[in-house]
Amino acid sequence: MGLLQELKERVCKANLELNEKNLVVYTFGNVSGIDREKSIVAIKPSGVAYEELTPEMMVLVGIDGSIIEGDLNPSSDTKTHLVLYKSFPEIGGVVHTHSPYAVAWAQAQRAIPCLGTTHADYSPGEIPCTAIMSDEAIKGDYETETGNLIIETFNSYSYKHTPMVLVASHGSFTWGITPEQAVYHSVILEYLAKMALDTLSINPDISAIRKSLIDKHFNRKHGENSYYGQHNRR
Amino acid sequence: MGLLQELKERVCKANLELNEKNLVVYTFGNVSGIDREKSIVAIKPSGVAYEELTPEMMVLVGIDGSIIEGDLNPSSDTKTHLVLYKSFPEIGGVVHTHSPYAVAWAQAQRAIPCLGTTHADYSPGEIPCTAIMSDEAIKGDYETETGNLIIETFNSYSYKHTPMVLVASHGSFTWGITPEQAVYHSVILEYLAKMALDTLSINPDISAIRKSLIDKHFNRKHGENSYYGQHNRR
Amino acid sequence: MGLLQELKERVCKANLELNEKNLVVYTFGNVSGIDREKSIVAIKPSGVAYEELTPEMMVLVGIDGSIIEGDLNPSSDTKTHLVLYKSFPEIGGVVHTHSPYAVAWAQAQRAIPCLGTTHADYSPGEIPCTAIMSDEAIKGDYETETGNLIIETFNSYSYKHTPMVLVASHGSFTWGITPEQAVYHSVILEYLAKMALDTLSINPDISAIRKSLIDKHFNRKHGENSYYGQHNRR
Amino acid sequence: MGLLQELKERVCKANLELNEKNLVVYTFGNVSGIDREKSIVAIKPSGVAYEELTPEMMVLVGIDGSIIEGDLNPSSDTKTHLVLYKSFPEIGGVVHTHSPYAVAWAQAQRAIPCLGTTHADYSPGEIPCTAIMSDEAIKGDYETETGNLIIETFNSYSYKHTPMVLVASHGSFTWGITPEQAVYHSVILEYLAKMALDTLSINPDISAIRKSLIDKHFNRKHGENSYYGQHNRR
Repeated sequence: MGLLQELKERVCKANLELNEKNLVVYTFGNVSGIDREKSIVAIKPSGVAYEELTPEMMVLVGIDGSIIEGDLNPSSDTKTHLVLYKSFPEIGGVVHTHSPYAVAWAQAQRAIPCLGTTHADYSPGEIPCTAIMSDEAIKGDYETETGNLIIETFNSYSYKHTPMVLVASHGSFTWGITPEQAVYHSVILEYLAKMALDTLSINPDISAIRKSLIDKHFNRKHGENSYYGQHNRR
Repeated sequence: MGLLQELKERVCKANLELNEKNLVVYTFGNVSGIDREKSIVAIKPSGVAYEELTPEMMVLVGIDGSIIEGDLNPSSDTKTHLVLYKSFPEIGGVVHTHSPYAVAWAQAQRAIPCLGTTHADYSPGEIPCTAIMSDEAIKGDYETETGNLIIETFNSYSYKHTPMVLVASHGSFTWGITPEQAVYHSVILEYLAKMALDTLSINPDISAIRKSLIDKHFNRKHGENSYYGQHNRR
Repeated sequence: MGLLQELKERVCKANLELNEKNLVVYTFGNVSGIDREKSIVAIKPSGVAYEELTPEMMVLVGIDGSIIEGDLNPSSDTKTHLVLYKSFPEIGGVVHTHSPYAVAWAQAQRAIPCLGTTHADYSPGEIPCTAIMSDEAIKGDYETETGNLIIETFNSYSYKHTPMVLVASHGSFTWGITPEQAVYHSVILEYLAKMALDTLSINPDISAIRKSLIDKHFNRKHGENSYYGQHNRR
Repeated sequence: MGLLQELKERVCKANLELNEKNLVVYTFGNVSGIDREKSIVAIKPSGVAYEELTPEMMVLVGIDGSIIEGDLNPSSDTKTHLVLYKSFPEIGGVVHTHSPYAVAWAQAQRAIPCLGTTHADYSPGEIPCTAIMSDEAIKGDYETETGNLIIETFNSYSYKHTPMVLVASHGSFTWGITPEQAVYHSVILEYLAKMALDTLSINPDISAIRKSLIDKHFNRKHGENSYYGQHNRR
C-alpha cells in the first residue's frame, strides 16, 4: 500500500460518483483531492474508463507538478487543478467535467444568471464564465493558463461563495472543502444550468432575482445564522 | 415507538417517492402529512439525504410550529406547509420540490397555461404563479410569507380544483387529500410543465384551450357524474 | 378462465409495454385489441395503475360498446377505440397515450412534417393533427366524437400508410395490424415527435423532404419490392 | 463455427453496445467490421431486434456486396458501408444510427459547428452534413449513392480527423480503426449534437471557436506529441 491510501480511496470514489450521476461519458472528467499538510494532490489518471478505476490507479502529484507516486499519467488537466489549489487556499477538492448543460453555457460564453432560489442556495449571484483565452496562452502552458483564467475571473467573485465556474468554450470546474463536496457542486451546477436554459426558453426577458431574495436564501444555508440542515441542531 | 407512527411511515414513504420519481436530487424537496384530529404535522427533517431517511426521522410539529417529537430539525420550509394546512382545510398532505421543469416556469414567472386535456384533467385552468415577494416580506418571516403569497394567489383560484402552484423565482408546492396524492400532483405538475414548454417551442402563438373542453375533461374525472376510474363501478 | 384468454394476455402485455417504454405515467394511456371474427374488443380498465394490471382485468367490449366480460369499467376512451375499429377494417390494435413529445405537437395543433427518412420509414408524409372539436361535439358523445374527428381527418390520408394521428389539444392515437404493432407505432411517433421539435429548433425554416426520398424509404420498407428486414429472405 | 468467428463476435457486441448506449430503438442502426486481409465485412442482419442478436446472425459480405456466409439478409444499408470501406482505406468499422440529436442536425441540413473543446477533441472543425441527394440518385442505387454522397463531402475534410458525418435528411455514419471505436464515435457525435443544439438555444449568435484552440485540443489528443491518455506513459 502506498502513500495517502485514504485520500486515494476517497478521490477514486468521488470520480466514480461523477459517472453514477451521469455527468461524464467514457473517460471524460476528473476529480482530485489534496492533502494540505503534505501538499500532495491525488488525481484521476488520464484517459482511463470509469469502469476500470481503482484507488491504486490514482496518481499522487506534488503541488509543483512533480509525480510522487503512480504508474499512470495523471489527468491532462492536472496543472489546472494545481493552480486552483494554490490560489484558493481553503479548498480540498476540484472537479472538471464536460457535463452537457454546463458545457452549453460555457460554449455560449455566457454566465448563468441567478434566476431563482435553487441557484441562490449555492451562489449569491451569477456563475461566471471566463474570458476567451488568447492565442498566446493557448500555445503556451495551456492547462496552467486555464487555471490562470479562472483565477483572473475570480478577482470579481468569491471562490468560497461561488464554488463553480464555466471556462469559455470548454467546460466546468467546481471545487469544495472536500473532493465529495466538489462533486456535489458539479451535480448542482448541471442542474442549475439545465433550469436556466429552460427558463430563458419560456421567458427570454427574465433577469436575475433581486438582491434581498439572493441574500435570504444564500444566508439561510451558508450565513452565520443559517438554519438549513442539522449543523445547528437543537 | 413514538406518536402517530402510521403517519410518519406514510410521510417517509411519500418523501422517498419524490426521489424515485426523479423530482429531487440530494436533499432537495420535502413532503408533509397532517393528522387533522390532533392538528399535528409530520414532515421531513432538514437537509437529510433520501437514502438515509427512516420513519423515525420524521419530525412532528404542531400547527403553531412547536416541535412535538423528533431529534432533528424539521424542513426549513415547515412554516410554509403550516400556512397551507391552516388555510386549505381539506388538504392532508403538502409537497415542495425544485423539480426542473416546474422551476423553469417559476423562474420565468409565468403561469402554465392550460394547453391541453392532460392539463385539464388536473386543473380547470392555468397553474398560477405567485407574485414576486416584497423586500419587506423576504426580510421578515420568509417561509410564512411564502405561504401567505400562495394564499393570496388562491383568492382567484380554487385550491380544491387546482392543487398546485408555482412560487415565483423559487419552485412548486402541491397538495392533496393525502401525502400520497400531493406527491402524485407534483409528478403531474412536472409532466405538464415539460409538455407546455415544448408546446410553446413548436408554436409560440398557441393559447389556452376552450372552456368547453376544459370542463369536459375536468368533470369527467372530478365532476359529480365523473366516469373515469373505478369509483363508480357497475 | 373467461373468453378470449389469449387476446386478454396480449392486450395486457401490450399495455405493460407502454409503461416500460416510458410513454405513460401512473394510469395514463390504454391499449386495446380486437377479435375480428367475434367483433369483441379487449381493453385496459379505466384508472388502474400499470403495476397492478393482470390479463383478468382486461374488459371485453362488443363493437357496439356493450360490456361482455369483466368486473371493472373499461377505459374512458373505449368509444374512440371502437370508432377506429369500425372505420379502419384492417387494424387489430389501438393505442392512446399522452406521451410528452406527441402531446407537445398535439397541443401546438400542428401536424408533424416529414423531415427525414426515419419519419418516411413509417409514414409517406406528415403525421396529421385533427381539427379542433366544436363545442357541440364536446358536450355531446365526446369520446365517440373524438373518433369521428380522427376519421374525418383520414379522409385526406391513408390509415394503412400513416398508422398514427395527433388529436388537437389532447394526445395521440396509433394503430396497427396487432396490439403489439400499435404500441410499436406509439414508440416511433414519440421518437419522431422529439426529433422534429429539435430539428425546428436548429433550423426553423426547414421544410418536408422531397417526394422521391419519401417514396424510396417508405417503399423499401413497405412497398411491393421492399427489401428491409427478413420477410423476403433468400 | 463459420468463418471469421472473432470478427462476428466483436461486431455483434458492438451492435449491442449501440443499444446499451441508447442510440437506437427496436431494429434501428447497424454496425459492421472488416477483415482487411480477406476483404470481408461482417454486418448486422436487417430488421432483427437487438435482444435477439447473436454472433452467428452476423452476415459476412464481400467487398463487392456478395453474400459469403449467413442465413439472414444483411442490413439494408450494407452498400453504404461498403463504399466507405473502399474509399477510406484505414478504417476497420462503420456505424449507422438514427440517434435523435444527430438526426435533428441532419434533418436541419446543418453541419455541427465546432463550438468547444469537447468537439475539438474529436474533430478539428465542423461535423459536415452532406448535400441533398438528387432525384436521380435516390431512384438509382440508393444505398451506394448514400456512400458516394459521403465520399464527395469528404473531398473537403479528412476522414481520419473527422470520423463522422451527417447525411442530410437521414442520420449519421461514423467510423473508426475498429468497430468498437466506430461505436465510440457515434456516442460522442450524439453528445456533441445535443450540446451544440443547447448552446445555440442560449446564444444563437455564437460561432466556431478559434483555430488555435481547435489545434491545441485536437493535437493534445491526436497529434504527434499528444499527451492525453496512457499511450505515451512514462
